[in-house]
Amino acid sequence: MTTTQELTAGLDDLPYNVFARVCPSRGTLEHVTGRWGALTLGALYEGSLRFNELRRRVDGVSEKMLSQTLHALERDGLVHREAQPTNPPRVDYELTPLGHGVAERLLALIHFVEGSMDDVLAARERYDAARA
Amino acid sequence: MTTTQELTAGLDDLPYNVFARVCPSRGTLEHVTGRWGALTLGALYEGSLRFNELRRRVDGVSEKMLSQTLHALERDGLVHREAQPTNPPRVDYELTPLGHGVAERLLALIHFVEGSMDDVLAARERYDAARA
Repeated sequence: MTTTQELTAGLDDLPYNVFARVCPSRGTLEHVTGRWGALTLGALYEGSLRFNELRRRVDGVSEKMLSQTLHALERDGLVHREAQPTNPPRVDYELTPLGHGVAERLLALIHFVEGSMDDVLAARERYDAARA
Repeated sequence: MTTTQELTAGLDDLPYNVFARVCPSRGTLEHVTGRWGALTLGALYEGSLRFNELRRRVDGVSEKMLSQTLHALERDGLVHREAQPTNPPRVDYELTPLGHGVAERLLALIHFVEGSMDDVLAARERYDAARA
């Protein structure tokens, strides 16, 4: 466990601060945590995947949204796109070292949320019952 | 550093799986990682805040969006709303223990993204230059 102090110390001293609306880190955080960005990074954490493999893994994503998501992550330097000189041509996507660092922290969050769902669903029932 | 194996082992054995489109954990992940959800949890990690204090901290959020965000987080059992019996009435928001666990992992991610922004911005310049 990290202490509150370790996590928040110096937050406001960093040159980048997601709490400030003009900071570019806010955009990157959104690429990383957006519905499809988060699932794409999580899927690629296990290894490189082709476009259609990714599409199957990220259940529900459209071709267009996955393509946009991959472009944003590639532009931010989190995903590397590698066109293989094969016939037919084949494109692999993999995490960069920076993307790996982001995905690791994201998966820790995803795991925690998945492991908390019994409590979350019980809280929703209480909330809805109190307002029924 | 956690190993890949530790992070991904058993992911598919959990009763909840964000990669499946019908899983309720996907909705909770979105409440937690959505633009305003993430910043609200991060702000409350430092302690309880009143509505207007939160609004100032989460730069750019509208009253309506902050209110919706707080309701979703309260319903998921991540935020506790406490109406103080004062005159004028005063409402404090604070993290529940579950919300604290989520916020801790979220802040680790936010910190990492903020600390990576020099690399992200350099990657964007390279990406745009290669396509100019």
